[in-house]
Amino acid sequence: MSTATYTVVGMTCGHCVSAVTEEVAQVPGVSAVDVDLASGGVTVTSDAPVDETAVRAAVEEAGYEVAGA
Amino acid sequence: MSTATYTVVGMTCGHCVSAVTEEVAQVPGVSAVDVDLASGGVTVTSDAPVDETAVRAAVEEAGYEVAGA
Repeated sequence: MSTATYTVVGMTCGHCVSAVTEEVAQVPGVSAVDVDLASGGVTVTSDAPVDETAVRAAVEEAGYEVAGA
Repeated sequence: MSTATYTVVGMTCGHCVSAVTEEVAQVPGVSAVDVDLASGGVTVTSDAPVDETAVRAAVEEAGYEVAGA
């Protein structure tokens, strides 16, 4: 079991949360996605560590951005 | 042709705009819905005047509220 937490910027409502959750859940290996709208925290759970690039791409696909480099 | 403008509170993003647009567009007689996210203005176009109660109900169904009494 592996978890990684990202901070996503730009989410403003429950629809945004749904959009991010749905995209990130489609990343291969991801078993659960938990989004906290207030903080922008997105916790990604998987059996093995997931490619961070793929998670960032999924967040961008949803129309948002991961904070930080 | 008839137009009526409502102010909807609580919309924060494009997903909110889509949700309101889709619900209000389903009100019988409505031919067009134009939403301005910044102001919350929702302009409803129809051939004949549309029941305001139905528009308010549609906005609430989408999860938002029409401002005012």
